[in-house]
Amino acid sequence: PETKLPKVGTTIFTVMSQLAVEHGAVNLGQGFPDFNVPERLIEALDRAMREGKNQYAPMTGIPALRQAIAAKTERCYGYRPDADAEITVTSGASEAIFDAVLAIVRPGDEVIVLDPCYDCYEPAIDLAGATAIHVPLDPRTFAPDWDRIRAAVSPKTRMLMINTPHNPSGAMFSADDIAQLTALISGTHIYLLSDEVYEHIIFDGARHESVLRYPELRERAFVVSSFGKTYHCTGWKLGYCIAPPALSAEFRKVHQYNTFCTFAPAQWAFAEMIEAEPAHYEGLGAFYQAKRDRFREQLLTTKLKPLVVPGGYFQLVDYSAVSDLDDVAFCRWLTIEKGVAAIPLSPFYEAAPAGQRIARLCFAKNEATLDAAIERLLKL
Amino acid sequence: PETKLPKVGTTIFTVMSQLAVEHGAVNLGQGFPDFNVPERLIEALDRAMREGKNQYAPMTGIPALRQAIAAKTERCYGYRPDADAEITVTSGASEAIFDAVLAIVRPGDEVIVLDPCYDCYEPAIDLAGATAIHVPLDPRTFAPDWDRIRAAVSPKTRMLMINTPHNPSGAMFSADDIAQLTALISGTHIYLLSDEVYEHIIFDGARHESVLRYPELRERAFVVSSFGKTYHCTGWKLGYCIAPPALSAEFRKVHQYNTFCTFAPAQWAFAEMIEAEPAHYEGLGAFYQAKRDRFREQLLTTKLKPLVVPGGYFQLVDYSAVSDLDDVAFCRWLTIEKGVAAIPLSPFYEAAPAGQRIARLCFAKNEATLDAAIERLLKL
Ligand SMILES: CSCCC(=O)C(=O)O
Ligand SMILES: CSCCC(=O)C(=O)O
Repeated sequence: PETKLPKVGTTIFTVMSQLAVEHGAVNLGQGFPDFNVPERLIEALDRAMREGKNQYAPMTGIPALRQAIAAKTERCYGYRPDADAEITVTSGASEAIFDAVLAIVRPGDEVIVLDPCYDCYEPAIDLAGATAIHVPLDPRTFAPDWDRIRAAVSPKTRMLMINTPHNPSGAMFSADDIAQLTALISGTHIYLLSDEVYEHIIFDGARHESVLRYPELRERAFVVSSFGKTYHCTGWKLGYCIAPPALSAEFRKVHQYNTFCTFAPAQWAFAEMIEAEPAHYEGLGAFYQAKRDRFREQLLTTKLKPLVVPGGYFQLVDYSAVSDLDDVAFCRWLTIEKGVAAIPLSPFYEAAPAGQRIARLCFAKNEATLDAAIERLLKL
Repeated sequence: PETKLPKVGTTIFTVMSQLAVEHGAVNLGQGFPDFNVPERLIEALDRAMREGKNQYAPMTGIPALRQAIAAKTERCYGYRPDADAEITVTSGASEAIFDAVLAIVRPGDEVIVLDPCYDCYEPAIDLAGATAIHVPLDPRTFAPDWDRIRAAVSPKTRMLMINTPHNPSGAMFSADDIAQLTALISGTHIYLLSDEVYEHIIFDGARHESVLRYPELRERAFVVSSFGKTYHCTGWKLGYCIAPPALSAEFRKVHQYNTFCTFAPAQWAFAEMIEAEPAHYEGLGAFYQAKRDRFREQLLTTKLKPLVVPGGYFQLVDYSAVSDLDDVAFCRWLTIEKGVAAIPLSPFYEAAPAGQRIARLCFAKNEATLDAAIERLLKL
């Protein structure tokens, strides 16, 4: 059949992970930890299965999990969403983003996305019959350029999608960005989708400017997060969406007929884990900061130049001292010839800046893995 | 905001399950077993978690599971789908149906559905910008009326959705239905979506006429199944879609950006279970037939009249000897006043037959549960 998604190919993450396997490369490409989930989660999940909690959960998620998310949200951002009317558990942040876009974006609408951005945003917009309007972030700091964003707004603008901390760069919205964002959408009919899956991986005492902190923003926003990044289980695909009641109602209409509900035993496990060990997510920044700092020191001994990483678990590196290949060719070469898999930035763009020589390395890895990668990178 | 899905409300399954809880009713409404998953699945899932299989699975599903599905399909239907190009693991059959419709159905298209049908079909069609064309099944036997289906075909027909064994009735496609279906779609551009989640719950030595048996059908079909019904774990939400390579490619473009992948440890558990214990799915018909027969005998002592149940785990009952209420009112009354939750048929229709007095009872329950229900139903 002709295709409804002509632009979609194999995602760069799959391509590079396969290449890493084929060539025995250390895989710092696709973002996932190589250490295990907390033992308590495994035990709680196991217990839930044995207790027979294996049938449909309520389509919004089990109440205990929604309440745990509400309490955690209040603790972190000073705002307690209504567990019944404002929180919906989904099969990962991916499903939440997909549902939010399908629920609210109509054929002919425009949705502003800030490049580079995660590759699942645009296909959802395309399937909704709308058009993604790409506005580039600053090519070195990855900060939003509010003049350009304002210039991209049109009467057709239905939604603005943001992501903080940002994948692939780790850049974080500042208080000033929030002020600019608030000025931009106040008094408009523009909805906001805020992808905050790296919310707990923040460094140097910075504050995560969650949209949930700001009444004028959250009243028009779908705020999406996930447990995959916070609890080292990217393959568990459990996420959630927080949105005001009227938006949650529309969101749920899609979710209900998309996946209906999500692997029930894991919902019980997270309900227990979130309540019992807030230290886990509160300590996650320090846990990853140690990795970031150590990896950065090591990278400084190679020819790759590490960029600043305010949050998230990715280190961008400028490779222009090593190679003049474009970033896709460089990452293939690095994987095949040098045994370290990385992710190029250009697939995150509609039109990548000419001559950008940046690759992304994931540091959500054990020290031994990062050491093995550095050993190879020293030979560049 | 205005809604994109004006027809969607709370599903009847959620409504009746909530009512059952509130009124302490025996819940024979929403379809789920009240017995647990096989012990081997729990153990295998637990092992997978402890072995660290907690990161992203390949978006198509782990190879071991796709191979197990391929082998099982060959064993059951004499056709071995290509595990790489034709099988995609999804977050339940729901996601598979949603993805298939979004992948292939375009704005302005028509999709034929046979009423009564499961409530997730139409919202997916609506979100694709298409129109559901409802053709009723026979009101007593729930067999397809091929004359009416043929009359519903138009140049806009993009897809026909079928479901065998059928929810809510348990009716199954016959060899003659397959011949009619083949004649109908041969030489057309109509795609088929075959929902076969009850494929192993079949009675009296009947043969499940899977679309996968028939080359002329499967070359245009998305065949959807799930492990929820087969392994007593409706809350695990693991399903799959089998479709020819070109259709799978389109399907995967949507799946990749919807949920990307599905709870990884369960994929390992099913890969093991399917291979190690074919007796489980091969014996499922007998397991449920014993329940069906016993429950039917018991119902014959009440004023409810059980209809014939060729497959699935639902018993339809004619309640016209008890009440002249419409089916929604009757099921509410039965739940609230008589303590047995049931599901009315009219929500499965665009326009239910006037005067239809049929309710659906789920018999995927322990004997004690069914006995408790019968005790209450004897007082009607
Ligand atoms: C779903 S594969 C992509 C994983 C990820 O978040 C990333 O590498 O950016
Ligand atoms: C997802 S709730 C509906 C469960 C079911 O399959 C049914 O009761 O028909």
